[in-house]
Amino acid sequence: MARRGALFALVLLAVAGAAAAEPERASEEASQLQVLPRPLVIELPTEEDAAAELRCASWRMAGEANNLAPWTALPDECAPHVRRYLAGPAYRSDLDLVAREASAYARAAAADAYNAWVFDVDETLLSNLPYYAQHGYGLDLFDHLQFDRWVERGEAPAIPSSLTLYNEVRDLGFKTFLLTGRSEGHEGVTVDNLRKEGFHDWDKLILRAPADRKKTATDYKSEKRKEMEAEGYKILGNSGDQWSDLLGYSMSARSFKLPNPMYYIP
Amino acid sequence: MARRGALFALVLLAVAGAAAAEPERASEEASQLQVLPRPLVIELPTEEDAAAELRCASWRMAGEANNLAPWTALPDECAPHVRRYLAGPAYRSDLDLVAREASAYARAAAADAYNAWVFDVDETLLSNLPYYAQHGYGLDLFDHLQFDRWVERGEAPAIPSSLTLYNEVRDLGFKTFLLTGRSEGHEGVTVDNLRKEGFHDWDKLILRAPADRKKTATDYKSEKRKEMEAEGYKILGNSGDQWSDLLGYSMSARSFKLPNPMYYIP
Repeated sequence: MARRGALFALVLLAVAGAAAAEPERASEEASQLQVLPRPLVIELPTEEDAAAELRCASWRMAGEANNLAPWTALPDECAPHVRRYLAGPAYRSDLDLVAREASAYARAAAADAYNAWVFDVDETLLSNLPYYAQHGYGLDLFDHLQFDRWVERGEAPAIPSSLTLYNEVRDLGFKTFLLTGRSEGHEGVTVDNLRKEGFHDWDKLILRAPADRKKTATDYKSEKRKEMEAEGYKILGNSGDQWSDLLGYSMSARSFKLPNPMYYIP
Repeated sequence: MARRGALFALVLLAVAGAAAAEPERASEEASQLQVLPRPLVIELPTEEDAAAELRCASWRMAGEANNLAPWTALPDECAPHVRRYLAGPAYRSDLDLVAREASAYARAAAADAYNAWVFDVDETLLSNLPYYAQHGYGLDLFDHLQFDRWVERGEAPAIPSSLTLYNEVRDLGFKTFLLTGRSEGHEGVTVDNLRKEGFHDWDKLILRAPADRKKTATDYKSEKRKEMEAEGYKILGNSGDQWSDLLGYSMSARSFKLPNPMYYIP
């Protein structure tokens, strides 16, 4: 669809300035580098593409600002937009900035043995991007069995900026509570995967018990945060890619929403 | 800065397909329309520009997801990004999508005489973009006196999608409470401005009393929402461009964060 009816532009590149001022040198460089002049074909986006890009950027923004109604799959037309976002530098840039803001906040917070930081696991500490890249980046409906098989391989890579933040928060003396929607049956593989990727010495890894299975993530995670508070911990920071990691009750003093345009968990 | 060292590209446009298949007709059309062939100069972004664009898109996203520490002015390097966002179609697209999501939610909510919807005023119902366009789109430090003079002119235009939502919410039978950080001294001009722009028949317009002046917006607005609840209203929807319109206590069942990369109110 993106290809049909596109305008093609034949582009001749020329260096302004240098080439005009020093034509001989520029020409020498050109022949040496075989770069200038060089014809390029640039595909200009169609109006239809541009309109879809605009709508999908708004859709992604609305999701991150928690303005969307619960959704089961991203809009069909947004698959290319989301793929470009995740596979290109923008996702990494967004993750890095959120981690930097969290880190600045953690450093400014008072050190106290009862200060705690809650981390979600999937799409927060570990990335399932290799799995989702094979499943339409969120366009395919979620397949529990296939996803479980991926989890059981224990090969989810660390999100680099989250690993840096995790280590910093630990070094600052925060208690680190890993609070995941993964089931207790996946405890072993989750521990192995986290360790292999450089996460060590967390204070507690909380997984979903059979009794939690029918709860929404918001309820399950709120309950667990309430238990932390009941044990005397003060939750100063909470990092998660879902609003259900962050909202509800017993909320953290500050929450950090990592980007995730692939799936929505209520 | 964006201009220096930029590569310039001389572009010859050619229509693929039509021109190749029907050269004579294409050539006729070209001479009639004086459109093809037409040399264009397209400025390609430098690597530096692209990196700043990436950082500023992340900064704007982080703000909308409430990940940023309180900020007094947007980052210097992001002024061009924010200007393009606000002056181009993306801001409008984001506003429209948030209003559509709010509208779908309002229609699905049960009709009840005690259901209420809270609207902020500035950058939610009315737009101060004409003012901010003259003041660096948020790059200039906020000037109370100058901004007050702008408010007193009563010429802030309606945000079109917000006007549509406002009318829809009223027609659905919601009580509409306009809760603004504007001071009571600006009541007259605010009422006139709202009416002139098509907003009518709100149930209450709440402005900041002298006693509220030193409160944060979060505290002031939470107190007012608590009063609504004490009067028996159930706040189902809340539309605002600041997180301080939406967070705190007595929060709405659902909140809608309109975009605003120009300023931050705690």
